[in-house]
Amino acid sequence: MLRVITSLSDIKQSIKIFKGNQVSIGFVPTMGALHEGHLSLVRQAKTENDRVVVSIFVNPLQFGKNEDFTQYPRTFDSDCELLSKEGVDIVFNPKAPEMYPDGFCTSVLLERLEDKLCGKSRPGHFRGVAVVVLKLFNLINPDIAYFGQKDFQQTVIMRRMVADLNLGVNIKVLPTIREIGGLALSSRNAYLGETEKKDAICLYKSLIKAQTMVNSGTKNFGEIKAEMEKIINNCKSAKIDYISIVNPETLEAVPEVHNGDVAALAVRIGKTRLIDNIILIFFIAIMFLSSYS
Amino acid sequence: MLRVITSLSDIKQSIKIFKGNQVSIGFVPTMGALHEGHLSLVRQAKTENDRVVVSIFVNPLQFGKNEDFTQYPRTFDSDCELLSKEGVDIVFNPKAPEMYPDGFCTSVLLERLEDKLCGKSRPGHFRGVAVVVLKLFNLINPDIAYFGQKDFQQTVIMRRMVADLNLGVNIKVLPTIREIGGLALSSRNAYLGETEKKDAICLYKSLIKAQTMVNSGTKNFGEIKAEMEKIINNCKSAKIDYISIVNPETLEAVPEVHNGDVAALAVRIGKTRLIDNIILIFFIAIMFLSSYS
Repeated sequence: MLRVITSLSDIKQSIKIFKGNQVSIGFVPTMGALHEGHLSLVRQAKTENDRVVVSIFVNPLQFGKNEDFTQYPRTFDSDCELLSKEGVDIVFNPKAPEMYPDGFCTSVLLERLEDKLCGKSRPGHFRGVAVVVLKLFNLINPDIAYFGQKDFQQTVIMRRMVADLNLGVNIKVLPTIREIGGLALSSRNAYLGETEKKDAICLYKSLIKAQTMVNSGTKNFGEIKAEMEKIINNCKSAKIDYISIVNPETLEAVPEVHNGDVAALAVRIGKTRLIDNIILIFFIAIMFLSSYS
Repeated sequence: MLRVITSLSDIKQSIKIFKGNQVSIGFVPTMGALHEGHLSLVRQAKTENDRVVVSIFVNPLQFGKNEDFTQYPRTFDSDCELLSKEGVDIVFNPKAPEMYPDGFCTSVLLERLEDKLCGKSRPGHFRGVAVVVLKLFNLINPDIAYFGQKDFQQTVIMRRMVADLNLGVNIKVLPTIREIGGLALSSRNAYLGETEKKDAICLYKSLIKAQTMVNSGTKNFGEIKAEMEKIINNCKSAKIDYISIVNPETLEAVPEVHNGDVAALAVRIGKTRLIDNIILIFFIAIMFLSSYS
């Protein structure tokens, strides 16, 4: 039976009972407006833990002044229906005044990671993400927390924060779920008109182009970027925020691609800012390795 | 039997065993060079918890570039002797490369609290304090953590951090321990020459002056500060860093003293920077309240 918990004292109490019974806890933090991407995390959490907690909290601290906090889709009732079907135990739906009471002033800063990629056009965003996830970890005390690869920079920051702060949480990152055309699922896709949704496929197409170029031996970032830009600039409604290929731990831009580096981009389709990424794999390296197995 | 633990995996293991046995843990974070101030915290921890853990770690992150990190007194063996006599269970003495491995980049920022008082002349100091204490809390998982009132701003920041991050740690602050003349005990007193040590009493004298003025009805900060300055400036070796009276939660300077506000100061005696503070009590308010009890 799905329980909806809103107060901090109630969630603490429930977690205390779980811990007393020595059951393992899987945790999926979300902002609601759930789609198959979220549900894939929930299903994985179900298979690996005794209990699953999903948080739904549109976190004001991770939105900039001119961003879409007020418009962000809120579909709490249908979210709960979906989670109930998946056999989730607890939906934690805290209220902002209890999460951030008067006098609240702590933020968590990951220097060198928070100001790159999306951090450049969304200053303060990752501080807001880091502090809310840290609070949720402290309240829920999960054994494993699940994140989607779509939010690549977020996953890098989460892993680093957990290591740096000695949090006993295992971070698992699961693959991006896509529509048939390749568009990465995102709650923000709800903002797209019909034509825009078709245009939005250019993000994925450009990432596939990057992988194809790597497959055929191109390693120079400038050459790859130029081809990616061509694909995106072919869409009238698209405006590039950034295209980058980075080291998957440091987020440092790489001039030459190495196996496992990540091509990441943010593109505005009309007024909607979308992100996507791909882990660039050297297939030759894989074949080489597999010949030893 | 006192156990000295240096590795992070060993402390996690020991804490896991404590938690499995459902024993309560009292924690005293220190930088070593222990004195009666630290020992008063340890003794209180002993009376209130099943097990007591003391950390000894001269935390590089909380020292500025031109500060006394390398000179800071290190007396590990005699510290352990003292703690053994007090019946402490574990001394946790981690090494900096394991606390801050390559790639470490997380800091904890308490806006509006970290840049006041000592934060002005020690930029970055409280970020370093906050992150190391957060790491230690996550590793040691204490029920109660003990701090001395002498480090007043630190105690305010610790309380705020614990509340803001939903850490399940009870913060207890115990009174400053003083020498007979009134000098607050501090590991940095070891830097003082004989004459300087006598001069250093001016900090306490000026705080007592503030309380005396409040007792006789003076509430104006400017008037109180002028008298405090006179006392300190009478000492040739003394140079005021700051004198302030602040709200004990927000650390905002107050122009007029309220009951419970804190007079805090930092003064250089020769090359040694010392801090001290006093909670200003309105004795009339206490008498008024006690007439109802």
